[in-house]
Amino acid sequence: MAANIYLTGIKPTGDFHLGNYIGAIKPALAAAREYDTYYFIADYHALNTIKDADELRHSIRSGAATWLACGLDPEQTVIYRQSSVPETFELTTILSALTPKGLMNRAHAYKAARDRNNEAGITDLDAGINMGLYNYPILMAADILIMEATRVPVGRDQSQHIEYTADIAGYFNHRFGSAYSFPLPKGVIDDSDASILPGVDGRKMSKSYDNHIPLFLPENKLKKAIRRIPTDSTPVEDPKDPDTSVPFQLLAHFADEDRVADVRKRLEAGGMGWGDLKNELFEAVNAELAPKRARYEELMAEPARIDEILEAGSARARERAREVIDRVRAAIGVG
Amino acid sequence: MAANIYLTGIKPTGDFHLGNYIGAIKPALAAAREYDTYYFIADYHALNTIKDADELRHSIRSGAATWLACGLDPEQTVIYRQSSVPETFELTTILSALTPKGLMNRAHAYKAARDRNNEAGITDLDAGINMGLYNYPILMAADILIMEATRVPVGRDQSQHIEYTADIAGYFNHRFGSAYSFPLPKGVIDDSDASILPGVDGRKMSKSYDNHIPLFLPENKLKKAIRRIPTDSTPVEDPKDPDTSVPFQLLAHFADEDRVADVRKRLEAGGMGWGDLKNELFEAVNAELAPKRARYEELMAEPARIDEILEAGSARARERAREVIDRVRAAIGVG
Repeated sequence: MAANIYLTGIKPTGDFHLGNYIGAIKPALAAAREYDTYYFIADYHALNTIKDADELRHSIRSGAATWLACGLDPEQTVIYRQSSVPETFELTTILSALTPKGLMNRAHAYKAARDRNNEAGITDLDAGINMGLYNYPILMAADILIMEATRVPVGRDQSQHIEYTADIAGYFNHRFGSAYSFPLPKGVIDDSDASILPGVDGRKMSKSYDNHIPLFLPENKLKKAIRRIPTDSTPVEDPKDPDTSVPFQLLAHFADEDRVADVRKRLEAGGMGWGDLKNELFEAVNAELAPKRARYEELMAEPARIDEILEAGSARARERAREVIDRVRAAIGVG
Repeated sequence: MAANIYLTGIKPTGDFHLGNYIGAIKPALAAAREYDTYYFIADYHALNTIKDADELRHSIRSGAATWLACGLDPEQTVIYRQSSVPETFELTTILSALTPKGLMNRAHAYKAARDRNNEAGITDLDAGINMGLYNYPILMAADILIMEATRVPVGRDQSQHIEYTADIAGYFNHRFGSAYSFPLPKGVIDDSDASILPGVDGRKMSKSYDNHIPLFLPENKLKKAIRRIPTDSTPVEDPKDPDTSVPFQLLAHFADEDRVADVRKRLEAGGMGWGDLKNELFEAVNAELAPKRARYEELMAEPARIDEILEAGSARARERAREVIDRVRAAIGVG
């Protein structure tokens, strides 16, 4: 099989924001020029929170349409739905038989849910926690291993996911390695400034901080959202420090270098107001996103087209998954 | 879909004993005359304990051959391998997202494993427990629900399995019942004397009590095993109480009524020794098992034939599973 499969899961949601675009979508599209890329809509992960059929169906399409609109080329990247690769769930069952429960007990997401119960004064720390959340690390390992992926982008705080996948692969390889071994995946941690976008309050843009600007806002709403970014009351004529200005930092991600350098000079010289800066920012963001927004709307008006793209990708993904599961089944004695 | 599917899992093992034959195999074969029966070799359950490919492969065939040799008709009963129905594992993933972790914490098998750790003075009560054991009730629910089975034979101490399956089906039906509902399965508890065979020490025959007689012992070894059943030292000529005699109770399961009544009379009258009783018992057991043992040996000499039967059954099982998973997928919004 091919070396260095680069794989990532796409949360099926229509709620992408500018931070996702800069931090996840753009780097993944860049990776597609370098690696064999497999990107999947994690619809069974989403089932842990979305319990409404229409909402889930819409979210799957919206997630796919967002990435396609941003430039994902379905010929170059295998884009598929997690739920279309049943080999993943068979592998989950196999890996469960090899994974110690203690490993799951120490998983960050599970421990965080228990901590929240504890802080809320709930004595049953497992209250409200479902088995999908608890089993999540095994399903994630299966998502990665079923494609023999070796490169998986992760946030700085998500490296445990990859460590767990490598641990679980290791349990299998230790027992059955003479017949079949999973390649051990490596996390690709991109924490360069280029991939971290500040939110309107200056902290990393994140839905949980409520400091985000949605990705495909209509033009007038995008303009308003940018106007509402808090700034101080320095008068127009005074010099300003670009490096402590949120709108300027955002601009640096969206405008070209010459434009950024020019605006920096004007801010430092004085005479450029925050309103002028925000106009520049709106123009830059809108120039980059307007065609993508239009493409997104086009795709969403044609759900059958999205489904077709996902079907085609899923067929390619299953071919690969089938090869891997057949080797795993033979190794354990059921194939 | 058909009403009242009767389903049971078959432990893939060559270690069947006379107690399994009387308590599980014979009743299941009788049920096949009354219900649509789906019997599966639980090979992924077995993976929790068997981590050797050759052993698992042999155990799967041996388990199937045992049931076939005992009279399971693969035209009448759908006999298949759990690992051949990947829809089961997809359903496991779906049901996990709906199952509270608290339910798993209270599962008997899991709690028993923690108790054993506790008694052994191990402070980490989850030590040595794998996720296959912990997730077992969800996988079992999926085994049952993917076939829409409504009748499942269980031992008196296993009714929790069925309660859990009904609970888990209920979580699904509550959320998605307007689109699709699982029928709720009922446990078929057969605790009549007819289905409980005593072991050589008089307690219920069980591998864990080490009081069992293997099902397909060669004739001479069967004779020896029966001769070794403990009896008291009542002299040959004395009257004996059949109802406290283990060999007599075993005889009652294997000989026809007339013969059993005749032996009872001879024991009560005196003049019949334990050795005579054991000879009667051996003749009766051997008469019933000899042709089955021969058929078992024949099948095991032709593994390709066993595989073929399991393949054919698995194809039928998958057809049914496919229908169910398609309806489930549509109900949750991924289909």
